[in-house]
Amino acid sequence: MSDLPISRFPVPEFNSLPEDIQVRLLAVQEKAGFVPNVFLALAHRADEFRAFFDYHDALMEKEGGLTKGEREMIVVTTSGLNQCLYCVVAHGAILRIREKNPLLADQIATNYRNADITPRQKAMLDFAVKVSTQASEVSDAEMEEVRQHGFSDEDIWDIGAIAAFFALSNRMANLTAMRPNDEFYLMGREDRE
Amino acid sequence: MSDLPISRFPVPEFNSLPEDIQVRLLAVQEKAGFVPNVFLALAHRADEFRAFFDYHDALMEKEGGLTKGEREMIVVTTSGLNQCLYCVVAHGAILRIREKNPLLADQIATNYRNADITPRQKAMLDFAVKVSTQASEVSDAEMEEVRQHGFSDEDIWDIGAIAAFFALSNRMANLTAMRPNDEFYLMGREDRE
Amino acid sequence: MSDLPISRFPVPEFNSLPEDIQVRLLAVQEKAGFVPNVFLALAHRADEFRAFFDYHDALMEKEGGLTKGEREMIVVTTSGLNQCLYCVVAHGAILRIREKNPLLADQIATNYRNADITPRQKAMLDFAVKVSTQASEVSDAEMEEVRQHGFSDEDIWDIGAIAAFFALSNRMANLTAMRPNDEFYLMGREDRE
Amino acid sequence: MSDLPISRFPVPEFNSLPEDIQVRLLAVQEKAGFVPNVFLALAHRADEFRAFFDYHDALMEKEGGLTKGEREMIVVTTSGLNQCLYCVVAHGAILRIREKNPLLADQIATNYRNADITPRQKAMLDFAVKVSTQASEVSDAEMEEVRQHGFSDEDIWDIGAIAAFFALSNRMANLTAMRPNDEFYLMGREDRE
Amino acid sequence: MSDLPISRFPVPEFNSLPEDIQVRLLAVQEKAGFVPNVFLALAHRADEFRAFFDYHDALMEKEGGLTKGEREMIVVTTSGLNQCLYCVVAHGAILRIREKNPLLADQIATNYRNADITPRQKAMLDFAVKVSTQASEVSDAEMEEVRQHGFSDEDIWDIGAIAAFFALSNRMANLTAMRPNDEFYLMGREDRE
Amino acid sequence: MSDLPISRFPVPEFNSLPEDIQVRLLAVQEKAGFVPNVFLALAHRADEFRAFFDYHDALMEKEGGLTKGEREMIVVTTSGLNQCLYCVVAHGAILRIREKNPLLADQIATNYRNADITPRQKAMLDFAVKVSTQASEVSDAEMEEVRQHGFSDEDIWDIGAIAAFFALSNRMANLTAMRPNDEFYLMGREDRE
Repeated sequence: MSDLPISRFPVPEFNSLPEDIQVRLLAVQEKAGFVPNVFLALAHRADEFRAFFDYHDALMEKEGGLTKGEREMIVVTTSGLNQCLYCVVAHGAILRIREKNPLLADQIATNYRNADITPRQKAMLDFAVKVSTQASEVSDAEMEEVRQHGFSDEDIWDIGAIAAFFALSNRMANLTAMRPNDEFYLMGREDRE
Repeated sequence: MSDLPISRFPVPEFNSLPEDIQVRLLAVQEKAGFVPNVFLALAHRADEFRAFFDYHDALMEKEGGLTKGEREMIVVTTSGLNQCLYCVVAHGAILRIREKNPLLADQIATNYRNADITPRQKAMLDFAVKVSTQASEVSDAEMEEVRQHGFSDEDIWDIGAIAAFFALSNRMANLTAMRPNDEFYLMGREDRE
Repeated sequence: MSDLPISRFPVPEFNSLPEDIQVRLLAVQEKAGFVPNVFLALAHRADEFRAFFDYHDALMEKEGGLTKGEREMIVVTTSGLNQCLYCVVAHGAILRIREKNPLLADQIATNYRNADITPRQKAMLDFAVKVSTQASEVSDAEMEEVRQHGFSDEDIWDIGAIAAFFALSNRMANLTAMRPNDEFYLMGREDRE
Repeated sequence: MSDLPISRFPVPEFNSLPEDIQVRLLAVQEKAGFVPNVFLALAHRADEFRAFFDYHDALMEKEGGLTKGEREMIVVTTSGLNQCLYCVVAHGAILRIREKNPLLADQIATNYRNADITPRQKAMLDFAVKVSTQASEVSDAEMEEVRQHGFSDEDIWDIGAIAAFFALSNRMANLTAMRPNDEFYLMGREDRE
Repeated sequence: MSDLPISRFPVPEFNSLPEDIQVRLLAVQEKAGFVPNVFLALAHRADEFRAFFDYHDALMEKEGGLTKGEREMIVVTTSGLNQCLYCVVAHGAILRIREKNPLLADQIATNYRNADITPRQKAMLDFAVKVSTQASEVSDAEMEEVRQHGFSDEDIWDIGAIAAFFALSNRMANLTAMRPNDEFYLMGREDRE
Repeated sequence: MSDLPISRFPVPEFNSLPEDIQVRLLAVQEKAGFVPNVFLALAHRADEFRAFFDYHDALMEKEGGLTKGEREMIVVTTSGLNQCLYCVVAHGAILRIREKNPLLADQIATNYRNADITPRQKAMLDFAVKVSTQASEVSDAEMEEVRQHGFSDEDIWDIGAIAAFFALSNRMANLTAMRPNDEFYLMGREDRE
């Protein structure tokens, strides 16, 4: 396991953390088997930590017209364009697991246009990229175009809001030089059934 | 008062909102004299609303090495680059009030390099712009350069985190075509003492 | 009133100016109530001054398919993209007055796509932005598209020529760090009838 | 001689032109042996024509710290970056003649960094490119850097103003699809002494 | 194993290929255990195939100041920037194997600035990125800066020539929508010793 | 004749070169009347030299749906965008000769959209520019669009592969600061019959 720094900023000791944050770290450790570094690096600021993960969960854990795997596709696509190491590696792992597909994350992180996804998913990612890179040009015409692929307005909010949230997340990870846990790199790479 | 739509997405009736969000709206109305449209437009999604404003307040209302006026300078600079109408107009108003300066917001929204600010504030905005537009290139050398202007590492986190949060906020406002309240345009434009 | 420098370059004394330029300054002062700094900063070079304002007036004061307010919309849009403080602030004031609308200038300076203008005016500004930022790609097809919105070829020349002239003007203002007069910031911000 | 259109817009008959413009056309024809198309294309608008050529002559025909050849280097460099066919071809010809160098124009139009010019001329062109492409970032530090190469503030105004004027000129030429006269292509290409 | 198309263009049958190309395919299959798709996709044009692989081997298989792993770092960095799926996945695998490091390829493909490499290697990749994205601005000063990190002029040629060759290779892979073999994704991901 | 350096790197003596390369140099000298500097500069590395010219000839000397002149149009267009002095000047000369047109090369190097070419040739150059500057976005839809202008899939490979090869070539020329022979500048500029 690497002992390189996981952030440019101080990382708090577990025992020094507020109890609710300790609980959150224990919960994710139980689920994932380890504590993803984003939880440790952002715990440097307790209030921002709480808002960050509340926001994340509101967007990524909800039910709706997008599957959880599709939500991760948005994260991996936009994080790749933003050259965000932590998010590409960590969410790439989650995407492989959600989609039970060991190839998809590397494809989408590099160039989603050539990935093994449906035309509907490509339209979803086109719109996510628009929000991520040129949100000021989002127009009613483009809204309409996404609807043509069967997305509801609630779905479109989800697509745009996930792209927007990871615009924040990618910048925090690059600001802090956040290091992905070594565990993520190999997760979900086993052969497909 | 304009009756043009304030969002591309549905805006909930006050009475239909969860009680904690109603309380929040009443509080801001009491303080500002009106409800800024961002509260109404984002109330479309209660959980995201809560996380958004918790995050906002954690960054913008805290004490620290940056004054509240300086925090607004970061918002107005990066929102200008992102062509975000809501954030430039609403936070421009707050900046004028915080700094008791009727000229500063328009200067900073257009080109902070030619604004009436100190060299230290220009360095702060240079770094904020870096995080906003090229976060993947933030380096230790640039961190060090900001420190040379007297900013602590906690200040640098603040600068970067505000730029990152408004990367999210600008994208949500552009996604929803969020309309600034007419009131903002004229606030704080009275003559300086 | 600010006594900060209005140009990086020497600003001539009124008495040292050629008589025709003195006359021009007196005329604008009588009309506006003050001498806009662009007249003082550019008076540093008498011949260039004369050509600049002759060109300006030929484009901005003429009758034609575009209203004077629409001409100012082109100026404010392209000057915002060029981050030109002088032109955004000074022509923003003129735009508010011409259109009797206190909100329009800030909207257009930030993101004309979300401003309170007609589809025809948006098409006009799309073309102006094209000339301002990618003139080498102007094609017959785009000419035709503008015509579809009811613009004559003379109107299209106007749109393009105004965008072209302010490409010059914005660069001169940024080269000289030209400072807008304080008076402009508040002009035309009174409530609409 | 080509009979392809020289402008997307109407080109006036010589006899229909105001007398002062007729005089100007006859003068340039006497000097150059032909009428450069820019005179014909811009004659479509008499007032703009007069201001354009007054401005041009004020910048390009004056004495000062820059030679006339150096002024043409600025034109050819920035017109190349703006992909302006008319200006590259016509001013390329003038540059070859002014500098008595048949190679320089093609070098500078393509990549001035690898052209046969002095370090001082490269610094001049670096600054001209800054004004042409990112004028909003011109800083006092950059002004100082140009001064280090021996340029006076008047020279710097010349460099910046020529870049600014051809920002206008290039856009007018691309708007009108202005066609260079065939004569320009071969002018000044004879062997150097 | 996927049976999705590996190229937008026809892929020749093995038996239809010229003998020297058959030999080359058999050799790589013996070495790698499978035939990388780039050999099949480019075999569509025999003469181009031969030149491509001769060029590749001349740059990537030679001895010199750069290790073979470092050569692959250049490939993965520039291919990531060019969003080339085939080259990121295939050369990412080779990089993991060459460097016996299962993490490095994903780091470098996403953001080499935050990868586990030496300052000298970062300088190498900075120069490679310059050649890949802005070669026209390569200057003697930048050459000198690379030398400061201990690279000889022959090394610098190697760095630049590899970046240049993969500028070609990335474009061919994106033109043909070249599909990486499934085998590459998992190669070299076993734990480090 | 200029005696300025033709490369930033060592240029080998003719007598020190491998025999096959000597033969190649003699052949081109016989044909062109002089040895183009690209042959001398690249001879610094014999294996890369051989692969480079084999690749070049495979693409540029073959028969097919594109004329040799059209192949040179692709080279000149993309080399202009890449600001490659050697390729614009040398291939501009070849283009003039191939097309027996003294104007075309300067037109295409500056802005092919305003050059004297057919709509079909413009579509060819649009696609070449796409491959040269944004190959990751090449889509099946764009392939189809090129086919609409009568290009076969083999033609499309040619267009894309020439753009890709000169992505390499332009970078090598800029890396080495390769100097075009003086002879090229005037070649093919005689009047058309």
